[in-house]
Amino acid sequence: MQVGIIMGSQSDLKVMSDAAAVLEELGVEFELTIVSAHRTPERLVEYATQARDRGIKAIIAGAGGAAHLPGMVASMTTLPVIGVPVKSSNSIDGWDSVLSILQMPGGVPVATVALDGAKNAGILAAQIVGAFDETIAVNLFNYKEQMREKVLESAKDIEENGWKPKTIGFKK
Amino acid sequence: MQVGIIMGSQSDLKVMSDAAAVLEELGVEFELTIVSAHRTPERLVEYATQARDRGIKAIIAGAGGAAHLPGMVASMTTLPVIGVPVKSSNSIDGWDSVLSILQMPGGVPVATVALDGAKNAGILAAQIVGAFDETIAVNLFNYKEQMREKVLESAKDIEENGWKPKTIGFKK
Amino acid sequence: MQVGIIMGSQSDLKVMSDAAAVLEELGVEFELTIVSAHRTPERLVEYATQARDRGIKAIIAGAGGAAHLPGMVASMTTLPVIGVPVKSSNSIDGWDSVLSILQMPGGVPVATVALDGAKNAGILAAQIVGAFDETIAVNLFNYKEQMREKVLESAKDIEENGWKPKTIGFKK
Amino acid sequence: MQVGIIMGSQSDLKVMSDAAAVLEELGVEFELTIVSAHRTPERLVEYATQARDRGIKAIIAGAGGAAHLPGMVASMTTLPVIGVPVKSSNSIDGWDSVLSILQMPGGVPVATVALDGAKNAGILAAQIVGAFDETIAVNLFNYKEQMREKVLESAKDIEENGWKPKTIGFKK
Amino acid sequence: MQVGIIMGSQSDLKVMSDAAAVLEELGVEFELTIVSAHRTPERLVEYATQARDRGIKAIIAGAGGAAHLPGMVASMTTLPVIGVPVKSSNSIDGWDSVLSILQMPGGVPVATVALDGAKNAGILAAQIVGAFDETIAVNLFNYKEQMREKVLESAKDIEENGWKPKTIGFKK
Amino acid sequence: MQVGIIMGSQSDLKVMSDAAAVLEELGVEFELTIVSAHRTPERLVEYATQARDRGIKAIIAGAGGAAHLPGMVASMTTLPVIGVPVKSSNSIDGWDSVLSILQMPGGVPVATVALDGAKNAGILAAQIVGAFDETIAVNLFNYKEQMREKVLESAKDIEENGWKPKTIGFKK
Amino acid sequence: MQVGIIMGSQSDLKVMSDAAAVLEELGVEFELTIVSAHRTPERLVEYATQARDRGIKAIIAGAGGAAHLPGMVASMTTLPVIGVPVKSSNSIDGWDSVLSILQMPGGVPVATVALDGAKNAGILAAQIVGAFDETIAVNLFNYKEQMREKVLESAKDIEENGWKPKTIGFKK
Amino acid sequence: MQVGIIMGSQSDLKVMSDAAAVLEELGVEFELTIVSAHRTPERLVEYATQARDRGIKAIIAGAGGAAHLPGMVASMTTLPVIGVPVKSSNSIDGWDSVLSILQMPGGVPVATVALDGAKNAGILAAQIVGAFDETIAVNLFNYKEQMREKVLESAKDIEENGWKPKTIGFKK
Repeated sequence: MQVGIIMGSQSDLKVMSDAAAVLEELGVEFELTIVSAHRTPERLVEYATQARDRGIKAIIAGAGGAAHLPGMVASMTTLPVIGVPVKSSNSIDGWDSVLSILQMPGGVPVATVALDGAKNAGILAAQIVGAFDETIAVNLFNYKEQMREKVLESAKDIEENGWKPKTIGFKK
Repeated sequence: MQVGIIMGSQSDLKVMSDAAAVLEELGVEFELTIVSAHRTPERLVEYATQARDRGIKAIIAGAGGAAHLPGMVASMTTLPVIGVPVKSSNSIDGWDSVLSILQMPGGVPVATVALDGAKNAGILAAQIVGAFDETIAVNLFNYKEQMREKVLESAKDIEENGWKPKTIGFKK
Repeated sequence: MQVGIIMGSQSDLKVMSDAAAVLEELGVEFELTIVSAHRTPERLVEYATQARDRGIKAIIAGAGGAAHLPGMVASMTTLPVIGVPVKSSNSIDGWDSVLSILQMPGGVPVATVALDGAKNAGILAAQIVGAFDETIAVNLFNYKEQMREKVLESAKDIEENGWKPKTIGFKK
Repeated sequence: MQVGIIMGSQSDLKVMSDAAAVLEELGVEFELTIVSAHRTPERLVEYATQARDRGIKAIIAGAGGAAHLPGMVASMTTLPVIGVPVKSSNSIDGWDSVLSILQMPGGVPVATVALDGAKNAGILAAQIVGAFDETIAVNLFNYKEQMREKVLESAKDIEENGWKPKTIGFKK
Repeated sequence: MQVGIIMGSQSDLKVMSDAAAVLEELGVEFELTIVSAHRTPERLVEYATQARDRGIKAIIAGAGGAAHLPGMVASMTTLPVIGVPVKSSNSIDGWDSVLSILQMPGGVPVATVALDGAKNAGILAAQIVGAFDETIAVNLFNYKEQMREKVLESAKDIEENGWKPKTIGFKK
Repeated sequence: MQVGIIMGSQSDLKVMSDAAAVLEELGVEFELTIVSAHRTPERLVEYATQARDRGIKAIIAGAGGAAHLPGMVASMTTLPVIGVPVKSSNSIDGWDSVLSILQMPGGVPVATVALDGAKNAGILAAQIVGAFDETIAVNLFNYKEQMREKVLESAKDIEENGWKPKTIGFKK
Repeated sequence: MQVGIIMGSQSDLKVMSDAAAVLEELGVEFELTIVSAHRTPERLVEYATQARDRGIKAIIAGAGGAAHLPGMVASMTTLPVIGVPVKSSNSIDGWDSVLSILQMPGGVPVATVALDGAKNAGILAAQIVGAFDETIAVNLFNYKEQMREKVLESAKDIEENGWKPKTIGFKK
Repeated sequence: MQVGIIMGSQSDLKVMSDAAAVLEELGVEFELTIVSAHRTPERLVEYATQARDRGIKAIIAGAGGAAHLPGMVASMTTLPVIGVPVKSSNSIDGWDSVLSILQMPGGVPVATVALDGAKNAGILAAQIVGAFDETIAVNLFNYKEQMREKVLESAKDIEENGWKPKTIGFKK
């Protein structure tokens, strides 16, 4: 097990599954479960304090609103913790999620990614593993290459076919 | 002991001491100490889970930036928790402090007061005690009366002496 | 009667009924009605000044936009007042509702909960009552237990069934 | 008496005196006093309900933070009410003052001016009086002319003397 | 003609017609047309400089985004100008509309109402006229009475029928 | 004359003089004066409508608060208009200045630069002239080279002397 | 080729095609393609450093979220760069797009237009070309005339037909 | 060399030196220099593309305003990049710095820390190294212990000496 993914509520899964998907694609081992800072504080303590001994190298934690999960996990481990601000239904346009994860006090960092940026959290976790593991590093390099090629293809498409939307037949 | 006041760091004391001062003025018993959610998580658990048994009726918790102390205490007690967003040095104009205390998820409320509003946190705690304790209620009633009289006096002063600033002698 | 719930307009009921529902669930007696600070100011005075004598221990007040109801009630009673910022149709993403309830001047606190957080307002009112009433405290403790169990169940479900959405048959 | 100026606290006078000064300059009669929505609610009722009968044509009300004074006055009179958001010490950069005055619900308008814009509140009150009183209208016209001339003079100064700051002798 | 209503674009009419409707209801004479600060600047000059001579007592101007219409009209007349920030399609959640109307420099006030608050702009214009015209004042008084009665009726309804939504038959 | 610099008030000069200084450095001819949208609207019309015929290629306009000058000039000329949001004393942290210049409606663009970014406004005007004038283009190229060299020098300094602040003698 | 239009992703085309459309209407030659700052950094270098030699006079660059494309292009050319903040799916209401394009450091300006303001970016590019090319200037003048006439027509329509929505037959 | 620290300008050093100091304290090897995305783009390419081969495991990049340095470095390496939003003099209260670093598009993450949070960036880099290096992990564990002890000491101090500020002798 290289990466642990946790989230505050099952409703966060539709955002957080992006982290799992990209880790799978990049060949990084991971686990995924639900740990709520506010509803299961003792499970939070258990998860955070045991993660390192279970071989985990980075923890991804997603939560929304007054999001305390990433910061509280970070307070109880020496592993790097990646925080995903989730724009949940009880959030004010995501600002609360972002600020309550990003603005950690001195001594207890959380590596924060963009709002709903679970895919990037997965890639960041892979980069942490890949800094020491050449196989993952190669996978990351290839992933970057694929992104580059996709952009070049769409550029080629627009240069050959023009910028105006085409409709053959009829448009609804 | 009726009210517990805790804060994340000694630097919060210059704001949080207002809560202590007003509780003293209103005749409410209180204790005050430092509990850091991120630096002493086990002390946080201890404080939150034992407060009720120690006779406390309301907990006032102040913190700044990504302020997790009030919410985490609330997750571990059935007592009402009053949160004071502190505009600490590592805060973005106080917005992070406010949002990470106010926007708690369903099931775990924190009674949030204004930014740096520790005095109001003290009064609110007194009101909670005073809802069941007639002596404190009378003290609160008198406190309100004094505020009213102060406004009436300043109104009288302005009506008699006019609105223009007066300077006798010389003005720096 | 232990808790009074008031709101500025009938349109706030779809948010504010959450407070009533959770108080019912927790076994706390309550009343619910409409009091508009701006359209029925004399009814506001009447409600606020008589609530304590009618035995009420905490008032929940919800309003949106330039929300003056919670603060004005708080100015006329020594009871704790819980304010619910409602994201009404005339609100700028809820910021006006939050700030005009939260940022009360020194001396007149309003215990503010999250935007549209009427459920948490109900729980907070129950916690105030429960600080002095053991039956309600037990109900709150059990409520917390149920939340904990729900999280553990959803964690178990995800650990057993995996994080990928399953579709049997066809997906619309 | 044509215009009434009220404010929530004596500390608002350093901002609100600008309204008095410009009304004096424009030849409009006014009164000025302190009325606190939260500390003297009954004085608020008295002021708002009697203003019209006392001959007042417009009320200027200034307050900061969760500023309820202008809106509550407007709820109890048919006179136009001009609101001045004051950036008081307990305000979050003025946003709370602005939003809790501006965002009034349908039916109860407050004519809001800029943050700390008491001078403009005075001019607006004069414009309301001046819409029906030719003498005040002429004073307003001349006031506008003076502003125009001041700009033209400063333009002439810069065109003649250049844009670079000049220092003769020595610069501290 | 007592009140002039102008707006920057025909698309603003769906908001601004509320001002016309309430003025009609309150018995105030008005005119309504389109004047664009950015597309017809000379028409803007013409409208603003002639309004007073045409007998108008107050101008309501609505615009969205970088909304310059209300402020530019105010720069060219001594009449009170009421600004309606419109949340148009090219606006960032209305913040640009609000700030570019509200934050006028010293000397040139705009009486700003809530975002999309055209109804309140109409009522405010009526209050300005009504400060000097007893018939309109009586209409405003009755309007306030109707608002009060509506609230009392909805309060009565909720007190008699309870707060829970009722569904007879079936619910979609 | 290639570039015109205007500003709403003499108090904007301390910001706007940066535009003049950099244009002088880059060898671009310019003029500088004061034109107030709200205090001298007819001067605004005159300036905007005649600029092109006077040979000007780009207009730089700076203003603060509800900043209408850049947009109103843009409405009356076909020249490119560069807007400088000034954080003036009557501005809410600069947000009003930025939004009331940036968010222009379709058809009337203003090329907005950073808050108080008058230097960049000057460089942008030079880039517009330099797109067609090889001498100015070379000056811009050299300007970029100097910036590059300054960074390399400070990098070299830090690499040679280390990152720790050095104090010889005593530190105040 | 007079103007180059680039954007970070194919998904930006639905916004950025407005720039192309208006340039076509104004008779300005342009090219349009995709260049991603983050996915094809070497293509970015190539495009930015060669644009001037290919005869381009102004570059329009659109991007969303942490939008680095306009600023990075500006760092590598002496041409004026026009930035279009796109409200993409990964943006927080457009604020990130606006701020990461607008707030460029001293020395490297980006001419920023409104959020999703690609049409205005096209017009601004045409104005830059038109400052030196009389044909384009005439086209811009006529474009402004058409805007003026459209406003006058809609004003005439509303003055003749009234402000109330008319429905003949039936309304869906 | 385990960690590289870069920043956009020498003026960022007063913030960024905190990262160096804490890495030194934690026994992590690092280098520190200046790389400007906008003034030395070719140096940026060189640094980013060679860092991995030089043995670096994590890059810390600090910048302010429209901060493109961290994101552009991340676009050109597979190493984890930690971004420090600096509240520089040309920043709007830090919001631009935060959003232009945090809100990276899918595929190119930046591990963002709090505004001016360079110390936390250093600790996060140490945690990344420490996930694979037991010596650094032990240093991190001890660092956490020291933080805990400091809090307990300040708690003890306040519990023994009381919450009221003490002044012996005279107070300035």
